[in-house]
Amino acid sequence: MPYIELNKNLPGITGLLDYRLDTALPIRQLTHILLRGESTLTEGERELIATVVSHGNNCTFCTAAHTAAANAYLPDPSIAEQVKTDILTADVSEKMKALLIIAKAVGRNGRLVTPEMVEAARKQGATDRELHDTVLIAALFSLYNRYVDGLATVTPDEPAFYDRLGSILQKKGYLPSEDRYAGLVQ
Amino acid sequence: MPYIELNKNLPGITGLLDYRLDTALPIRQLTHILLRGESTLTEGERELIATVVSHGNNCTFCTAAHTAAANAYLPDPSIAEQVKTDILTADVSEKMKALLIIAKAVGRNGRLVTPEMVEAARKQGATDRELHDTVLIAALFSLYNRYVDGLATVTPDEPAFYDRLGSILQKKGYLPSEDRYAGLVQ
Repeated sequence: MPYIELNKNLPGITGLLDYRLDTALPIRQLTHILLRGESTLTEGERELIATVVSHGNNCTFCTAAHTAAANAYLPDPSIAEQVKTDILTADVSEKMKALLIIAKAVGRNGRLVTPEMVEAARKQGATDRELHDTVLIAALFSLYNRYVDGLATVTPDEPAFYDRLGSILQKKGYLPSEDRYAGLVQ
Repeated sequence: MPYIELNKNLPGITGLLDYRLDTALPIRQLTHILLRGESTLTEGERELIATVVSHGNNCTFCTAAHTAAANAYLPDPSIAEQVKTDILTADVSEKMKALLIIAKAVGRNGRLVTPEMVEAARKQGATDRELHDTVLIAALFSLYNRYVDGLATVTPDEPAFYDRLGSILQKKGYLPSEDRYAGLVQ
């Protein structure tokens, strides 16, 4: 049971974004810019960053939600599973491997990013902007993970819930809309 | 040296907020609402939450900046030092002690917040909104700490730098303004 009173039909982050709309708006905007805005990283790649960080922070809700969102973009649902298990052997580009390793370190603590990790990403062609965005996405999901778990929000068990959420995040993105979560909990 | 090219006159978070203005805006707005908006927690108390979380995450820049911002509001500069050393014996209210303990846990991982911690805060009169805001402020500074350290931004040594920054954060808050950092680096 959540530590504060939230709408029972809105589990995980959805109830928190509904609880205080004024703080939810900039959180949604930041997420939309970073995960759906113009970028040389694909939407699927950016959702993998969110997935790896959430998994590293043991946030079950966020991991399942962004695994589903990544799967909505990627050709093969095993890729999201692979990056959670072992980044180095996952079926992603060498540049993405280097960026995911940086993201995972950031999720634990920013100081764990080493010059060698950054150098490895640069050798695979990572730009300043890609490094910046990888770190900021990882930092943002460190916020989400702590927000969701720190207030003990509800984590649905049914995989179908996350499939619906992933599909919404692909079709509508992260900006608010009145019927945004309509039909999410069935 | 930072991992990406940033304005050399803007150390720590200031150079990052200058690097990508579109992502900086919602970050600034969220921070301003949470730390300067209407609340039953004082500005000084909210800056103490930022300080305790940054200190727990070993982010030297953020800790020094928000210690200075807290000091700009609080009657006694030893209070910010006390909460960093030992929350339980610090010269703050019993409610603040309970909220700071929750914030510190969130900074490490949201799952570390226990029902007992929340119960202790409620016994001292903490409301849903105060619990929510404490967790979200702690989550937001977990973002800042990782953003600042994950890109290895510069941490000035001179205490006077942070005194100036703390004074700016008190007088102008967190929203952007063209001359926001004018005269920060002297």
